[in-house]
Amino acid sequence: MSVDTAFKAIAARHGFPLDEAIKIGGNYVPLLQEGEVIYVSGQIPRVGDVVRHVGEVGTDIGLAEAQQAAAISTLRALALVQRHLGSLDLVRSVPRITVYVRSAPGFTQQSEVADGASGVLAELLGERGLHTRTSVGVSQLPKGAAVEIDFLFGLRRS
Amino acid sequence: MSVDTAFKAIAARHGFPLDEAIKIGGNYVPLLQEGEVIYVSGQIPRVGDVVRHVGEVGTDIGLAEAQQAAAISTLRALALVQRHLGSLDLVRSVPRITVYVRSAPGFTQQSEVADGASGVLAELLGERGLHTRTSVGVSQLPKGAAVEIDFLFGLRRS
Amino acid sequence: MSVDTAFKAIAARHGFPLDEAIKIGGNYVPLLQEGEVIYVSGQIPRVGDVVRHVGEVGTDIGLAEAQQAAAISTLRALALVQRHLGSLDLVRSVPRITVYVRSAPGFTQQSEVADGASGVLAELLGERGLHTRTSVGVSQLPKGAAVEIDFLFGLRRS
Repeated sequence: MSVDTAFKAIAARHGFPLDEAIKIGGNYVPLLQEGEVIYVSGQIPRVGDVVRHVGEVGTDIGLAEAQQAAAISTLRALALVQRHLGSLDLVRSVPRITVYVRSAPGFTQQSEVADGASGVLAELLGERGLHTRTSVGVSQLPKGAAVEIDFLFGLRRS
Repeated sequence: MSVDTAFKAIAARHGFPLDEAIKIGGNYVPLLQEGEVIYVSGQIPRVGDVVRHVGEVGTDIGLAEAQQAAAISTLRALALVQRHLGSLDLVRSVPRITVYVRSAPGFTQQSEVADGASGVLAELLGERGLHTRTSVGVSQLPKGAAVEIDFLFGLRRS
Repeated sequence: MSVDTAFKAIAARHGFPLDEAIKIGGNYVPLLQEGEVIYVSGQIPRVGDVVRHVGEVGTDIGLAEAQQAAAISTLRALALVQRHLGSLDLVRSVPRITVYVRSAPGFTQQSEVADGASGVLAELLGERGLHTRTSVGVSQLPKGAAVEIDFLFGLRRS
């Protein structure tokens, strides 16, 4: 099974539509390629016009839902990269992701939330999906989203 | 009009003096070039010795002032790059900016604050100023600044 | 004195054991090399199984202890890089560190906390250890740690 076929299956399992337009802001871009590195802007768990997971993790939102929010943010990033490259086969590495979790004061499972993103990358890309990761708890995120993640992807054959 | 002349005009409009010394910390540097990438340290809206916009966005500080804080932080970064390179003409891309907004609990317009930075980059650099962006709400920033932004600039002719 | 010998001395002074296993998470990696850049995942001040500095800086934890937390996080990163490369002699630059400080509402000395990291890099690596830096105050960190830092190291002979 090709990685793009696998991506369809994983996206479907998460209820993430791949054929929909991805909303894009004004004076910035969702994705930028610089040599063999692709930078992806911070992604929140938005599907179409709706941010699917809004709220503070630890009070409004539990760990499992926050992990799902991290998975959706990751699927958005992968969809952007797939549209840009034509195929996710060209992704050779994921050097870094930074996972911002909108956290209740006493919530300290930011790493566990980030596992929702890491799991998607591992399932889809295997060894190529191994990444460095920073997970932090922040007080707010755009549109009140529960999670925001930005990504670096590498195209280099190393 | 050259980009450096345009920079003078934009900085003047924001009341940002280009001829002033930019304060520099101890064991770190405001800017570091590594091959064709320039890393710029997190910039707060400091002009000379004074942090111009201090406070929590959403309570002490409104959206328009926070956007102005983001613009000043961006002008500082551009001034550092101009001094390093001699001219902003050599900037080919802005792969990424990360915008930290010191946010009141209910404030969710971090993206709109970041537009204050993106607008300066677009006005000054046009297509070359398009960038990926991550905007997050944090609980505090150095010296109580309302906004902090770090930057990557690219020198590569792609 | 070689940099690796100096590293032993500095680590000993901070009570950081270099021979111990460094705990590693699941679907991500603590370190990833991409060409001549090494990405290091966010490091908290963990020694063996214990996070040594847990708490909010400004209330539970004072500035000096927070600086020590930043130093330990930096020693962890350096230990990872040393194991990966065989010797810290191969580190040519430290383009960027991002320092997240778990901050009490009124605490604004994030830069001073980050000096704990910058000091270790300067002492150990001298000119090669000069880096760009972003310091922010966040509401929570994994396992309640007081500080988290991620790093880029460069191997490029420039």
